[in-house]
Amino acid sequence: MKIKRVGIMSPGDMGSAIGKTLSDSGFDVITCLEGRGALTHLRAKESGMRNVQSVDQLVTEAELILSVLVPAEAPALAKLVAGSVRRTGSHPAYADLNAIAPQTVTKINAVMNKAGVTFIDGVIIGSPPRPGRSTRIYCSGPDTSALESLAESGLDIRSLGPKVGQASGLKMVYAASTKGITALWTELLVGARALGLEKALMAEFKLSGVNIDEVLKGRIPSMPRRARRWVGEMEEIAKTFEGVGLTPRMLLGAADMYRLVGETKLADQTSREPDPTTDKVLQVLTKCLGVVK
Amino acid sequence: MKIKRVGIMSPGDMGSAIGKTLSDSGFDVITCLEGRGALTHLRAKESGMRNVQSVDQLVTEAELILSVLVPAEAPALAKLVAGSVRRTGSHPAYADLNAIAPQTVTKINAVMNKAGVTFIDGVIIGSPPRPGRSTRIYCSGPDTSALESLAESGLDIRSLGPKVGQASGLKMVYAASTKGITALWTELLVGARALGLEKALMAEFKLSGVNIDEVLKGRIPSMPRRARRWVGEMEEIAKTFEGVGLTPRMLLGAADMYRLVGETKLADQTSREPDPTTDKVLQVLTKCLGVVK
Repeated sequence: MKIKRVGIMSPGDMGSAIGKTLSDSGFDVITCLEGRGALTHLRAKESGMRNVQSVDQLVTEAELILSVLVPAEAPALAKLVAGSVRRTGSHPAYADLNAIAPQTVTKINAVMNKAGVTFIDGVIIGSPPRPGRSTRIYCSGPDTSALESLAESGLDIRSLGPKVGQASGLKMVYAASTKGITALWTELLVGARALGLEKALMAEFKLSGVNIDEVLKGRIPSMPRRARRWVGEMEEIAKTFEGVGLTPRMLLGAADMYRLVGETKLADQTSREPDPTTDKVLQVLTKCLGVVK
Repeated sequence: MKIKRVGIMSPGDMGSAIGKTLSDSGFDVITCLEGRGALTHLRAKESGMRNVQSVDQLVTEAELILSVLVPAEAPALAKLVAGSVRRTGSHPAYADLNAIAPQTVTKINAVMNKAGVTFIDGVIIGSPPRPGRSTRIYCSGPDTSALESLAESGLDIRSLGPKVGQASGLKMVYAASTKGITALWTELLVGARALGLEKALMAEFKLSGVNIDEVLKGRIPSMPRRARRWVGEMEEIAKTFEGVGLTPRMLLGAADMYRLVGETKLADQTSREPDPTTDKVLQVLTKCLGVVK
């Protein structure tokens, strides 16, 4: 299957980076910015994406639609597209690339299949793709060829077989090891500071040979600006674990942590501004607990 | 303050290793094995501990009593000792070395103060002390001199100041970084296996430069035989976090994970037997979820 025209909903950080990669290598990339702000219009334009007037037009023109959203919006977009497919009699393939649980993907798959759409379970692991950066797109489903054909653009696309739910499942367990564990580090560092024990803890880490440089320099500073998005992702991982009989509580707690971060002004920052220091992040979070040191 | 006679309740793995360190350097170490099994008697004897006939006798003879137990038993022992102190008119110092929340320690402190006992908040970080091994005992409280005098035996004892709750608080945040994070790794690895995604996850870790050797070789194999003890410890950490306004759910989930492990035969192993492989641990846990791969 040879794809030429790809629809992307919606052109956020990730969606527009994928759009740019595709348009840079000759794909015709379209999006629908109905009701979106000036910044989104600008970003879409910068990424070489063409704005069409309606979802119906996007569904009619695109051979493949990529859903790249925050987890909570994934089911609604799928329903919107399914309705549009029925109305317009078109038949694009549809790849859901969001960080959602296999159970959520299975429901979306049912909606799309009912509308006669070829559904692809997909996920993105890594930062928004740019030249020289390593980002992987995993997919699974009975026919993933439409998505796999985008590899021509340089995107690293890997199939996990015919079963819808495998790609999303991989994202869930992988994100538990990154964002889940970052949530726990954040909580215990904030807890230590709130208890007046941060220095003692750092000294003990040194004594017991625990290296937390990567946490302090890598994980914490870039977390706040993504925390609001991660709330829903943690809830989807909780659902994934619950689905196989494991406790959902650790990941629901991780969602609580990111909700807390999301309520602070730290979360208003964008990726275009410099990240705060770990010290600043811990200071703001400890203060918002109302704890007097 | 110069201490000669130390009471230890009770001589488990940790208690008997501390007892041995003390008796090897000339302290008179006593314990009360009332109602305990033959193995505990043997272990106490091997550690050079002298068995006394009753808690009243232990309380009367000891200048310092160390409480080294599973978290759930700490308040009950404190009450038992407080009652015995009143009954016998003796006045030993009492150090609670258990992994319990500052709130729990504060309650125990009140009980001991009411009985006229000098209370020391203490915790142990590291494996049971043996020659050549690094184990630290942290303490805090208005008068920690009795516990600090044990440093003569080679035990590494460090004061965190006059405030009861600081030593226990340090243990809580530290254990969140070790046992809390191990619980999350265990969950996501079991989840990956249950979903048939373990190979894909390991391949992705390699691609994204995540080194999980320490998890697979170090953290998981030695966890099951300690999992039952850790359930209560995770709940105490949850309480600690809740006490400063942070979510308890991540650590309650960690308790759920260790409860699950504790229900399997893996948890019946002792430290005298070789640890299972990570593969075996994941196999047993995945099977007990009732998930067919």
